[in-house]
Amino acid sequence: MEKNFRVAILGVTGAVGRELLSILEQRKFPIAGIKLLASKKSAGQKVRFRGQDVLIEEATSQSFRGIDLVLSSAGASVSRELVPHAVKAGAVVVDNTSAFRMDPQVPLVVPEINPEDIAKHKGVIANPNCSTIIMVVPLFPLHRRARIRRIVAATYQAASGAGAKAMRELESQSREILAGKAPTKEVFPYQIAFNLFSHNSPIKEGGYCEEEIKMMRETKKIFHDDSIEVVATTVRVPVFRAHSEALFVECERPIPLDEVRLILSKAQGIRVVDEREKNYFPMPVEATGGDDILVGRIRKDPGKENAFALFVSGDQLRKGAALNAVQIAEIWAGISKGEAARR
Amino acid sequence: MEKNFRVAILGVTGAVGRELLSILEQRKFPIAGIKLLASKKSAGQKVRFRGQDVLIEEATSQSFRGIDLVLSSAGASVSRELVPHAVKAGAVVVDNTSAFRMDPQVPLVVPEINPEDIAKHKGVIANPNCSTIIMVVPLFPLHRRARIRRIVAATYQAASGAGAKAMRELESQSREILAGKAPTKEVFPYQIAFNLFSHNSPIKEGGYCEEEIKMMRETKKIFHDDSIEVVATTVRVPVFRAHSEALFVECERPIPLDEVRLILSKAQGIRVVDEREKNYFPMPVEATGGDDILVGRIRKDPGKENAFALFVSGDQLRKGAALNAVQIAEIWAGISKGEAARR
Repeated sequence: MEKNFRVAILGVTGAVGRELLSILEQRKFPIAGIKLLASKKSAGQKVRFRGQDVLIEEATSQSFRGIDLVLSSAGASVSRELVPHAVKAGAVVVDNTSAFRMDPQVPLVVPEINPEDIAKHKGVIANPNCSTIIMVVPLFPLHRRARIRRIVAATYQAASGAGAKAMRELESQSREILAGKAPTKEVFPYQIAFNLFSHNSPIKEGGYCEEEIKMMRETKKIFHDDSIEVVATTVRVPVFRAHSEALFVECERPIPLDEVRLILSKAQGIRVVDEREKNYFPMPVEATGGDDILVGRIRKDPGKENAFALFVSGDQLRKGAALNAVQIAEIWAGISKGEAARR
Repeated sequence: MEKNFRVAILGVTGAVGRELLSILEQRKFPIAGIKLLASKKSAGQKVRFRGQDVLIEEATSQSFRGIDLVLSSAGASVSRELVPHAVKAGAVVVDNTSAFRMDPQVPLVVPEINPEDIAKHKGVIANPNCSTIIMVVPLFPLHRRARIRRIVAATYQAASGAGAKAMRELESQSREILAGKAPTKEVFPYQIAFNLFSHNSPIKEGGYCEEEIKMMRETKKIFHDDSIEVVATTVRVPVFRAHSEALFVECERPIPLDEVRLILSKAQGIRVVDEREKNYFPMPVEATGGDDILVGRIRKDPGKENAFALFVSGDQLRKGAALNAVQIAEIWAGISKGEAARR
């Protein structure tokens, strides 16, 4: 008999929380009971799940009794406060915030890359940053083949990364500007409609913003390779919910371009979209709602023998967040082995 | 007595053509007479210039008699057909298309970089591609100091680069999508509103598109340095008229970061926008309508001693096209010396 799990979703009213619900339903995760948790403000609302209306409860330290699995996506400060209580109550937490990602006790997992790390958990398994996931899924099979030494990344990040309110702000500002009005700024510090700006996370050491530092550090941890260099410029663009990235990759060894294509076309979690004659390559509108990260513009670097360039798009709310978390939960639950990138 | 010039604008109804008119007016270019040329379709329309209505005439091989200076921006095929007639008639042509840029007889000029090349013209002076100009203006003073060896560039290019119709398409598609309708595609091959896509120029050698190849080749020619490597990924984004670029630059020698800042803050044609504590950096809405290229996110590469990263935004229609052309014309006319980057 298959085991069914008592699952709690922490932060169910957010953009990722809603996606978690829909992915659990879609993938038929074996659920014995579901508990929907959010802030006091949202408690009392109802959400549809598997044909039933489920009441949202206020998340407190007492919310986790009898829960097997928590999928957490309510922000780093909420995770820091509540996740220890969930672990104490005996639950396993797949945490989608930055709270525990760099904790050496906590595995940081992308199922296509390091599923074996899940077994090492001590109650918490961390889900990487969305920009990191979208970058590393297509790069890992190439890293295995030719050992990546340096990644230069420029991102084109959707409004969804800043939550459901930010997506509504892109919509409302677009309407205002098209009506000849000044855009109202509430979520983002600068106009997002018909504009773009450097990712609005705090600037830290060396002038890099937190988002860029996450890409640098998380990649090393996920690949188990501290010597890999990542330098990134992260940018918010007026797109609703898929992130794109221009990647320039230097390896220890050369790989023929045909082999890069072959490796990518066989890897899990990726779809090659690379029709040069039609100028048809990855686009956020086509990545939106899908599970795969789209990969294209596959070409050699004209100046470096061991280097190549790619352009990728992936749904920030799905593979960049909720889908990756549910895939981790599936491996933890023994439903999937998370076979890494068809090694 | 100052000399006044008989000026023709070829392609006056386009996005760059209109900007040329407004910049000539703004900068009080010494004009003895103006001739406005466009396709047969636009002939007969009137355009306001210096308080007068000026009739648009059809551009033909006979249009250039008595003209001193032609500012040409009607597309490469029109330039290839008509520019030789203008030169034969005794005019000097500042050409804003790709038609003659790589011709060894034709100087390719950015006034802040190589104004001395203007004197070598044989009738035609070429204006570089917009993405190239926006990249090289901030990089040249750093190249002079530390010899740039490699540039990795990812662009965020506005609709204006594809002309006035493309800007209207961004607007109309945005309205359609906000009204829940499917976007109508006429100018761009793919949806531009709330989306982005690899630059829609034909893919050529090595899988690089024409726009990327322009950035690679034109940089070598403008810098008079064939050994400089440029690798670019060019992307169209839903912004009206300023291009942005994430630049990763490797030099022969290290430059302390304070000196990078100092050099940029003193250089011509640039404004440093780099307030880390406010997360305030270059944005297309702030570059729009201005003459300067905004430069920020100035930081060292974490992995390479001699390398640094920047983020820039510049008005594609002004410095990326019309302003650069008028600045070339001013140097040619002896009005300005085009002092290079305050050497």
